[in-house]
Amino acid sequence: MTSPHEVREPSVRIYEVGPRDGLQNEETFIATEQKVALVKALLDAGLSRVEASSFVHPRWIPALADADELFRQLHGVDGADRLTALVPNARGLTRAAQTELQEVALFMSASETHNRRNINKSHKETWSVFEPLFTECTARGLRVRAYLSTCWGCPYEGMVDPVVVARLTERLCALGAYEVSLGDTIGIGDPALTRRLLDEVDAAVSLDRIAMHMHDTWGRALANCIVGLERGVRTFDASIGGLGGCPYAPGASGNLATEDLVATLQAMGVDCGVSWEKLLEAGRLAQSFFETSLPSRALRAALSRCE
Amino acid sequence: MTSPHEVREPSVRIYEVGPRDGLQNEETFIATEQKVALVKALLDAGLSRVEASSFVHPRWIPALADADELFRQLHGVDGADRLTALVPNARGLTRAAQTELQEVALFMSASETHNRRNINKSHKETWSVFEPLFTECTARGLRVRAYLSTCWGCPYEGMVDPVVVARLTERLCALGAYEVSLGDTIGIGDPALTRRLLDEVDAAVSLDRIAMHMHDTWGRALANCIVGLERGVRTFDASIGGLGGCPYAPGASGNLATEDLVATLQAMGVDCGVSWEKLLEAGRLAQSFFETSLPSRALRAALSRCE
Repeated sequence: MTSPHEVREPSVRIYEVGPRDGLQNEETFIATEQKVALVKALLDAGLSRVEASSFVHPRWIPALADADELFRQLHGVDGADRLTALVPNARGLTRAAQTELQEVALFMSASETHNRRNINKSHKETWSVFEPLFTECTARGLRVRAYLSTCWGCPYEGMVDPVVVARLTERLCALGAYEVSLGDTIGIGDPALTRRLLDEVDAAVSLDRIAMHMHDTWGRALANCIVGLERGVRTFDASIGGLGGCPYAPGASGNLATEDLVATLQAMGVDCGVSWEKLLEAGRLAQSFFETSLPSRALRAALSRCE
Repeated sequence: MTSPHEVREPSVRIYEVGPRDGLQNEETFIATEQKVALVKALLDAGLSRVEASSFVHPRWIPALADADELFRQLHGVDGADRLTALVPNARGLTRAAQTELQEVALFMSASETHNRRNINKSHKETWSVFEPLFTECTARGLRVRAYLSTCWGCPYEGMVDPVVVARLTERLCALGAYEVSLGDTIGIGDPALTRRLLDEVDAAVSLDRIAMHMHDTWGRALANCIVGLERGVRTFDASIGGLGGCPYAPGASGNLATEDLVATLQAMGVDCGVSWEKLLEAGRLAQSFFETSLPSRALRAALSRCE
């Protein structure tokens, strides 16, 4: 890898989702102390932001039931201003407000059916929840990121119209989201569709406010991100070690691995403010929590002697 | 996936290397009958060419010691005109000439050190072997493909100058290679380097005569192929199931998986003449030879219920 160097304003920002999106589906229970160590290692590696947990009700995501305790233990750590957490509703926001978080993430789906199945609301009902939620976040001085899932395709509806994605993105920005993370929830996106989708979104909002959240189920996450990078996207979501495999597909890949993305950007000479050596330490730590190999190819390559 | 349909002249050609490059490093011994079944399944799936084995001395590649018997059993099968085999020298060519093969593949490395370590010759010595070998192939009516390894980087020398790659490619074409397959032997290529390399090569020979042979060690093989596709490359090497992991890196990925490439091309609407359903049958067959999961993400996704 090229020599790592940290700068204040990297040209590409990486939003780390491993501790939240990565761990939420894992069957292995990760103790709070382990999570704290992982989040600290990720902050130390220089990642632009780290989504450390979720204030979803523990009944839905038992793996992240310790969110309140986690943020207590993270209070005052170096880089705490780069922490963020998922918030589903007003109750979750109240919990988030007890922490020193400066940012939260809300979520909805581009497809009506996935939105109903995931958060039990129509799009219209979602807006009526989001409007007061955004207002309260603003009142509390919290920055809001919004996740928009199923932008490249829906497991129930199939194709999702890029025009719909652009319209929803525009509305989320208008409500106050400083960034909208477009998600390829089932990892079905391809470079041609990515280009069409970004063309539509670009016509609606500045791509500076867009992040790409690609799943690697079909092995295309990185290829899609490279297309996005060329198209002007500057923020990419990734998960340490590739944590977050689909629970219905043993061995299948979930999130794009942070190591795969960072190694590629660094090879291309694109600065993302991340120390490769420290990222590898975080990857090693994440790997130590599990018995099976994590999906990241770059992590496996780096830990082996293939070169 | 999109509906498969076979045509005589697909816009992209896929050169299948699984039975040769994929199996040559595997510790599991695959019986000749199993190999025959796999090669037939790959031909049936519509792959443009299938490299079925190698006429390297059995001492070096014991896994492919049955090459002569394999081609005897493949004699006259449907699509036999699409079969090819690796040939290292005059002795190998004599063995290949006993078969009904219409095409063989020769190989060398772009880096001097890798060439010496791999075939025990300098570049200069390689040319003095290649010249009579090409002449003999022409005399026997055999088409010649040439592999040029380590084009994106060398495990011993590090960076490899794209100008050197272009010069060697030009010479291989001048000797009579109808196609030169540029190999990223250690999987270190990135999209920016791929563009620089193809610019250099394009200035020397028509990209119609170029194939890309990308390894997925760092997870970048597909992203690099997409860059190549946009730049005008129309032939890509791939290995069923992603067979061919690096023997020094347990769990590390080797060749780009055919399923990952084909699924992406079909999603993009790019015709490669392959039937997805039949390719999946070939992938299932390859998977049945091994106890551990093959690396292909698309194969894993298709075999599971993630969608």
